[in-house]
Amino acid sequence: MRPVCVVGLGLIGGSLMRAAGAAGRTVWGVTTSAEDAVAATDDGYQVEARLDDALDRAKQQDAMVVLAVPLPAVEEVLRRVPPECLLTDVVSVKGPVLDAVRRRAPGIRYAGGHPMAGTAASGWAVGSRTLFAGAAWAVTAEEDTDLATWREVAELALDCGAQVVPVTADDHDAAVAMVSHLPHVLATVLAATGALGGPLALSLAAGSFGDGTRVAGSRPELVLAMCEGNRAKLLEAVDEALGKLGAARGALASTGSLRATVQAGHLARQELMKHRQNPRTSHDVDLTQPAVLATLRDIGTRGGRVVGFDGDIAHVEVPGLG
Amino acid sequence: MRPVCVVGLGLIGGSLMRAAGAAGRTVWGVTTSAEDAVAATDDGYQVEARLDDALDRAKQQDAMVVLAVPLPAVEEVLRRVPPECLLTDVVSVKGPVLDAVRRRAPGIRYAGGHPMAGTAASGWAVGSRTLFAGAAWAVTAEEDTDLATWREVAELALDCGAQVVPVTADDHDAAVAMVSHLPHVLATVLAATGALGGPLALSLAAGSFGDGTRVAGSRPELVLAMCEGNRAKLLEAVDEALGKLGAARGALASTGSLRATVQAGHLARQELMKHRQNPRTSHDVDLTQPAVLATLRDIGTRGGRVVGFDGDIAHVEVPGLG
Repeated sequence: MRPVCVVGLGLIGGSLMRAAGAAGRTVWGVTTSAEDAVAATDDGYQVEARLDDALDRAKQQDAMVVLAVPLPAVEEVLRRVPPECLLTDVVSVKGPVLDAVRRRAPGIRYAGGHPMAGTAASGWAVGSRTLFAGAAWAVTAEEDTDLATWREVAELALDCGAQVVPVTADDHDAAVAMVSHLPHVLATVLAATGALGGPLALSLAAGSFGDGTRVAGSRPELVLAMCEGNRAKLLEAVDEALGKLGAARGALASTGSLRATVQAGHLARQELMKHRQNPRTSHDVDLTQPAVLATLRDIGTRGGRVVGFDGDIAHVEVPGLG
Repeated sequence: MRPVCVVGLGLIGGSLMRAAGAAGRTVWGVTTSAEDAVAATDDGYQVEARLDDALDRAKQQDAMVVLAVPLPAVEEVLRRVPPECLLTDVVSVKGPVLDAVRRRAPGIRYAGGHPMAGTAASGWAVGSRTLFAGAAWAVTAEEDTDLATWREVAELALDCGAQVVPVTADDHDAAVAMVSHLPHVLATVLAATGALGGPLALSLAAGSFGDGTRVAGSRPELVLAMCEGNRAKLLEAVDEALGKLGAARGALASTGSLRATVQAGHLARQELMKHRQNPRTSHDVDLTQPAVLATLRDIGTRGGRVVGFDGDIAHVEVPGLG
């Protein structure tokens, strides 16, 4: 099993190091956070003192390098990754990282990753080896992505207990703008509006306000990095939400009815629950067929996931009866 | 202990009947839902076949009548409540119910109630006697509210395990527009926007989307009744949210920064957590002092709650060191 060098030991990087280690891989890490470095070392993990030491070791041991730093720090690290290394990342936007890789590390074997797991808390201390259990883990498959590299990154995700969603960086960023970044923006808007009601409103606030504002508790720097890093796609999602909220406002003001808004939202929520609860069908994809990454991307677009590899076969699961 | 007649045996009415019964009160109910009637009877509770039978019994046994029906059904029930009864309700808006009481049952001894507890599911079957444990329960205190009536309603809330927030109907409705009704509207907007991303987006959706859309799973009729019933106040809350979301959109489009939005939301979420976690100070309010309902309302406005009665004393808890 290929060793793993994790750059950044916060919630995601730290959980990945624990999970990959538990799967039997040799793992080491490096971080600019003294707190995370001490905590990881105390937990028995190898933490190199300097980035270049960690990356030199990656070159010597033919390791996979995982960038688990916020987007603004990606370029600086990329310039120092040895071109011989296999590279992935766990940053929550994929287009900007792909651009940076093409600029700063052209030709390197790379497939981007994004595990869809997390908590409002951050840092090594709140991570766990089971954070990714059953979670989706997007692994980017562009036209020019090397299949062997893609598979290695997917295998790391599977080793961490996740299921792999094959997707282009562009499709990924559009989807997470709607289901991850917009929720963060709406949570902050809701929290700030509720605060206008003062202590009385906070005293009366129950489950709907608590749930709706939960991710507003996330570290602002992390929220800003992911939202601002996905600016164009997030603008489209915010415009959709503004349109729907404005339509609700108009209907409430003119006719007094919110029926269209509430019905549409209810149906959409039911879609989500059906997606999560409906039985899935399994089948196999022969990885030796031509243009197989396009086949895998189609499966991702249909809501399917790769759940295992066996020789030249990828086991996939797709929703519903399809 | 005064007997309790519960009209409507859904999640809230059914949980209230269980909790009041567990506290030692004689309880009976009535419902237009055959399903809820059968379920409550099977669980050993007394369910009258007809509304008038239940209300006649309330008059004979000097019971408190609790309206636990959706707002659109309130007026019809009100016209049939015997004027001798003590009356409260658990409807999620208080101004329209107060208006209806003044119109349909003028002079009746009434204080409105609203337990801030619930789930996305509905009906007798999902209720429980512990639903209200530790929850806020608004009990309305207007200028002309009778103190003895207010206290009886508050005592029912305490019997159900809740803590009492004294508040005017108007202040209640403004607060819940922000912390209960707006969250429902934003959840439907988020769910509908996410659904535009199709199966891929649903596959990548994780905690932030799941939490942010949870209450969109509530029964549309219940959401519509409470949101449309609080139209004017909800419009103000939606306009605040539209303003903040529009400002976020503008900042993201022009400067690329969401810092002001994210910081404000993060601070507001921290306010909520502080409100919930900070130690509270206890003190006593002498209920024989003049204008004591005004004193109690002030305590509610400051985020305080009544947690018990002892003779002519109300025990209250207020946030922080105040």
